[in-house]
Amino acid sequence: MSGNTFGKIFRITTHGESHGPVIGVVVDGVPAGMPLSEADVQRELDRRRPGQSIVTTPRAEKDKVEISSGVFEGKTLGTPICMFVRNVDVDSKPYEAIKAKPRPGHADLAYWLKFGHIDHRGGGRGAARETVGRVAAGAIAKKLLAAHGVEILGHTIEAAGVAVEREVSPEEIRKNVENNPMRCADPKVAEEMKRRVLEASAKGDSTGGVVELIALNVPPGLGDPVFEKLDAEIAHALMSIGSVKGVEIGIGFKAARMFGSEVNDQLRLKGDKIIGDTNNSGGILGGISTGMPIVARIVVKPTPSITKPQKTVDVVRMKEAELKLEGRFDPNICPRIVPVAESMLALVLADHMLRAGKISPNRFKGFK
Amino acid sequence: MSGNTFGKIFRITTHGESHGPVIGVVVDGVPAGMPLSEADVQRELDRRRPGQSIVTTPRAEKDKVEISSGVFEGKTLGTPICMFVRNVDVDSKPYEAIKAKPRPGHADLAYWLKFGHIDHRGGGRGAARETVGRVAAGAIAKKLLAAHGVEILGHTIEAAGVAVEREVSPEEIRKNVENNPMRCADPKVAEEMKRRVLEASAKGDSTGGVVELIALNVPPGLGDPVFEKLDAEIAHALMSIGSVKGVEIGIGFKAARMFGSEVNDQLRLKGDKIIGDTNNSGGILGGISTGMPIVARIVVKPTPSITKPQKTVDVVRMKEAELKLEGRFDPNICPRIVPVAESMLALVLADHMLRAGKISPNRFKGFK
Amino acid sequence: MSGNTFGKIFRITTHGESHGPVIGVVVDGVPAGMPLSEADVQRELDRRRPGQSIVTTPRAEKDKVEISSGVFEGKTLGTPICMFVRNVDVDSKPYEAIKAKPRPGHADLAYWLKFGHIDHRGGGRGAARETVGRVAAGAIAKKLLAAHGVEILGHTIEAAGVAVEREVSPEEIRKNVENNPMRCADPKVAEEMKRRVLEASAKGDSTGGVVELIALNVPPGLGDPVFEKLDAEIAHALMSIGSVKGVEIGIGFKAARMFGSEVNDQLRLKGDKIIGDTNNSGGILGGISTGMPIVARIVVKPTPSITKPQKTVDVVRMKEAELKLEGRFDPNICPRIVPVAESMLALVLADHMLRAGKISPNRFKGFK
Amino acid sequence: MSGNTFGKIFRITTHGESHGPVIGVVVDGVPAGMPLSEADVQRELDRRRPGQSIVTTPRAEKDKVEISSGVFEGKTLGTPICMFVRNVDVDSKPYEAIKAKPRPGHADLAYWLKFGHIDHRGGGRGAARETVGRVAAGAIAKKLLAAHGVEILGHTIEAAGVAVEREVSPEEIRKNVENNPMRCADPKVAEEMKRRVLEASAKGDSTGGVVELIALNVPPGLGDPVFEKLDAEIAHALMSIGSVKGVEIGIGFKAARMFGSEVNDQLRLKGDKIIGDTNNSGGILGGISTGMPIVARIVVKPTPSITKPQKTVDVVRMKEAELKLEGRFDPNICPRIVPVAESMLALVLADHMLRAGKISPNRFKGFK
Repeated sequence: MSGNTFGKIFRITTHGESHGPVIGVVVDGVPAGMPLSEADVQRELDRRRPGQSIVTTPRAEKDKVEISSGVFEGKTLGTPICMFVRNVDVDSKPYEAIKAKPRPGHADLAYWLKFGHIDHRGGGRGAARETVGRVAAGAIAKKLLAAHGVEILGHTIEAAGVAVEREVSPEEIRKNVENNPMRCADPKVAEEMKRRVLEASAKGDSTGGVVELIALNVPPGLGDPVFEKLDAEIAHALMSIGSVKGVEIGIGFKAARMFGSEVNDQLRLKGDKIIGDTNNSGGILGGISTGMPIVARIVVKPTPSITKPQKTVDVVRMKEAELKLEGRFDPNICPRIVPVAESMLALVLADHMLRAGKISPNRFKGFK
Repeated sequence: MSGNTFGKIFRITTHGESHGPVIGVVVDGVPAGMPLSEADVQRELDRRRPGQSIVTTPRAEKDKVEISSGVFEGKTLGTPICMFVRNVDVDSKPYEAIKAKPRPGHADLAYWLKFGHIDHRGGGRGAARETVGRVAAGAIAKKLLAAHGVEILGHTIEAAGVAVEREVSPEEIRKNVENNPMRCADPKVAEEMKRRVLEASAKGDSTGGVVELIALNVPPGLGDPVFEKLDAEIAHALMSIGSVKGVEIGIGFKAARMFGSEVNDQLRLKGDKIIGDTNNSGGILGGISTGMPIVARIVVKPTPSITKPQKTVDVVRMKEAELKLEGRFDPNICPRIVPVAESMLALVLADHMLRAGKISPNRFKGFK
Repeated sequence: MSGNTFGKIFRITTHGESHGPVIGVVVDGVPAGMPLSEADVQRELDRRRPGQSIVTTPRAEKDKVEISSGVFEGKTLGTPICMFVRNVDVDSKPYEAIKAKPRPGHADLAYWLKFGHIDHRGGGRGAARETVGRVAAGAIAKKLLAAHGVEILGHTIEAAGVAVEREVSPEEIRKNVENNPMRCADPKVAEEMKRRVLEASAKGDSTGGVVELIALNVPPGLGDPVFEKLDAEIAHALMSIGSVKGVEIGIGFKAARMFGSEVNDQLRLKGDKIIGDTNNSGGILGGISTGMPIVARIVVKPTPSITKPQKTVDVVRMKEAELKLEGRFDPNICPRIVPVAESMLALVLADHMLRAGKISPNRFKGFK
Repeated sequence: MSGNTFGKIFRITTHGESHGPVIGVVVDGVPAGMPLSEADVQRELDRRRPGQSIVTTPRAEKDKVEISSGVFEGKTLGTPICMFVRNVDVDSKPYEAIKAKPRPGHADLAYWLKFGHIDHRGGGRGAARETVGRVAAGAIAKKLLAAHGVEILGHTIEAAGVAVEREVSPEEIRKNVENNPMRCADPKVAEEMKRRVLEASAKGDSTGGVVELIALNVPPGLGDPVFEKLDAEIAHALMSIGSVKGVEIGIGFKAARMFGSEVNDQLRLKGDKIIGDTNNSGGILGGISTGMPIVARIVVKPTPSITKPQKTVDVVRMKEAELKLEGRFDPNICPRIVPVAESMLALVLADHMLRAGKISPNRFKGFK
């Protein structure tokens, strides 16, 4: 496997298995002189952490980040930033029993077919825990972007069949998302989502949903035709998150049932800026940012770990078998995917800001 | 712009503007000794060509391919294969008048903001014509895959609001797709699609749709966790096609409203192979192919070129303006996107077959 | 084979075999708005062309370049620039006889072992003709660099055992190099070089030499520790030229016999710039440019094609054989390698200028 | 800075500053199922460690490696292998005094010009300590290569003006190199080298030398024309090591003064293998391995840290200054560069073995 590196200038390499000693990331391409502390990263990791609420798994990961390189006297050095989190509350025992039985909906079978083994200790690199490195790196990307005026927002817009039917404002997202366990911008809808999520969970089942990502104040001109289009790289980044089965930009799949005259964003002036009357393009045309907000949505499949009995195949004995998972799992992963997806969007944008010369590659803004 | 190269081992570089002298591609990473002729490539280019039918633009591109390197005495040399098509039926005059007026829904504005100019001659690299290189390269990828048992299928499953509501078989796709202008596997639905597409077109408007891609007989084990997941790279590849605003794998966006017990493909034995009762995963779990058919879908927005009057901004005078496009445009691009999307899927799979050691990198199967 | 692309932002892909229809290159990453004509490129190709003088092979390649994309109305578009040269004066007949007999010192045997065939038509991609694409791309890189003040010089400092023993000035290089067939900056030494080169040639043998490359006015700060060091990428670029068996930077191999106190460039002020008393570092320390001239040297082995009888193995019959090459070959390739090596240095520097933000990626200096 | 990743399939990312908390590396692309222990890596790190002998710096780094991911129950998982070493015996105090004074011959000035700061704590990423990550990764590459029959050897062939004038056999290298402080294959020459090294050291000066690398039993066919030639990537890898100012392959710089008839390796049969009478090509022709031993040499400049007074510029006050380094430094780094250079060669070869399909990418040889 050699696919653990992502990005061209702002480039991350993640490592670590779910139940190994540590999980971590090396972040390369951060300009020198940017203020950075472990607290900056911890804040984002705490948002990803399980056990935050009733709808997330209660594994009590502390996930305390340590920065072991690239920062000196509170500022980045321009050298690679290595961060890691020790895996503490690890108990691989429940997995022993199912060692030879790939869990439906999980990567187990595919890993076994590829590598000849299943890292039964909680899924290894296929486990959600792998995203710790992404979120730590994303925290740095976000901070770098923020210093250049770019803001990243994420929120759950649908879960367990309950959707936010109206458009919510950035203000609502900023204000409400961290105040309910679903990370939904509409507190009332959040209540209903939670109710349905727990209802399914009580029956040993899980639910999915849709998460929306928004990037505000992105300068126009990011994205390189034709294969390094901004939307293509965003799709790559978001689809690389486990459990994501689809990505759409702007109007997305709705475009299939609309007319050109409806989808085309009509252009007009707002001061000296050219903007669209609408933002069906999601801030990207021809793979290049237009200056309008970037809008992407991902569909998150229901958590594959459920306690209902399932059918599998014992890969050692090569015979069909039943599987009954024990333990408590995230009944819905949307809220925990929010910071992961925000991170991936931030990574792509930071990389493209650097590629387009909007962020200076060697020295942080104002640093001499 | 430096994003014209795609792939890691099987790697293509496309070039050429819509109204420049030629449009072409260099294909690197093809093993030596594979039989290859211009006819192999021409067949696919003819499927992409405009003017094929009533629902495609009548620009009479001949699109005759010439192979200028990498093939000798009917066999690949293992050296890069350069192919190009001369742009003949080129008339840039209609574009002169709209030189300073970015067309809504097109890349014009974004290119202008990035590069400081609009290649008004038919959109330059932002035009659909850029896909000639992709399809030529895709023809080679498909041939290489076919020699290793992998088949790629594509078909329109929704257009202008008309959808194929049932699952169609590979046989139907193979049999019907080239026999109707919509490239729809169900001839009756195709009729209705065409009717609605032409209806909108008659009103100066355009329509969108959904195209489905299927790869049969893909070996398990393709895809590298965690950022080079097979589905992530497929999403990248497909989203890099102009007009595509969303990508989904397997069950896709439907997963948002389902339960885990419904989405998880239950495993069973079929002979000595482990298969799923269903294929909601679309043949990919944890970013790795499972051996089940790979299924991806893309949403294609309505052709942005419409003859209805639109609002734009004259970027030279910086004042609002009206835009009335003259000419005849594809009323619906789904049928022409089918071979392009098939090509992108083939490119990703050929690359991953090479990365996973399923295709030998230097010498074509059986070649000595 | 998939190694025909070079560079990260300024990125080239070459293609074409020695005796195929064309030889060419796609240059990606050139900012939009740079004035560029075929004449700019032709000038450099003419310097590479054989048949220029008595010490080069008389193959009368016209090597007329055609630009088929990326330039419009005399300016770059920011899209990939495709250039090619048709192979005209091609005669593969002399090669027929030696089809199964790898030529000692050539790539023939290695290609055969790798790809299962020898492109006997003049060596295919292993032939010196492959460098046409490099030089065409280099011409663009040089022009872009020149617009940002960077000048690239190349000259032969040793050939056939005759060396320039003194340091020559940039002025001498500029003035003399194009005025003698050896591309030597010292006209008297050039005479002696030529004499010895022809002497060996008359005996059916060939000679080698050393070429020096200098880049003037390179800004400090280019090069990325630790694996993308400027000198590491220069070494890569120069060693990728056929016949080059060694690369050194600054003091180079002489450093083995010197003391630290001699090699360390002592620092002092010159105005507000920090410079070295000497330039043993060759303008690069820790892989990063210091602002001093960049100096690299390459050793060029004697042309492997010689008319003296040689020992080989017939790879079809697998028996030892004698080989007697017919025809006229470059008795010494140093002069023709000068523009190729200059090009490779220019490509690395242009790429690093872009990476370091010293060249703006999207719009050419002053272009709006 | 974003250049801390190297390799395409077998890919490493190093991190950590000389005086930061840890120094480490992430190794990606190792097949699953290879036996690997910390002892395997420690052995190589001990060869790199300072304080081994009288000719190396006495900094008592323990350099105890910890593997924190990618290995489970004594076998590789196919996931990225993260290894690190804690920096213990770190004393940054001596560097405080010279904070603003770039040391001649060091990266200090270049880093300051690029990043706006000098990591005065022992040179940061510019320090030799950065190579810990390379050697740890190299240990894995060597083990993987060894399992496929490839052996890597390194030895000092010249130091302080004393050279091994004769060719030494692989047996001599294996037997003698670890038995003398110079890592020289000829014990008598080693004695003389040591004498001269210490003589210069006693005068507050340092010396350089030449290190030779040999790879035995490399299969033919590695290397991708034209920019990913095996020798080009070896040159890149070796030149990326601090203090290396030149690289040569096979006959190297000597080729400048030889005739083609002398340099061309005449071919003959040895059993069913085609070999050269000589190995002037150093096992690589046209950038592709031929099956003969791969031979490369690097020149190592004298250690830039010397105790003799030197001239520098105080970059804060911008005035000329004298610099007198205190402490004890490696009088000659050749012996410690041997394992680093071996590692870099091993990394390139492991990567190319994977690219050429000579090593299976997912599962270690014989692992199921």
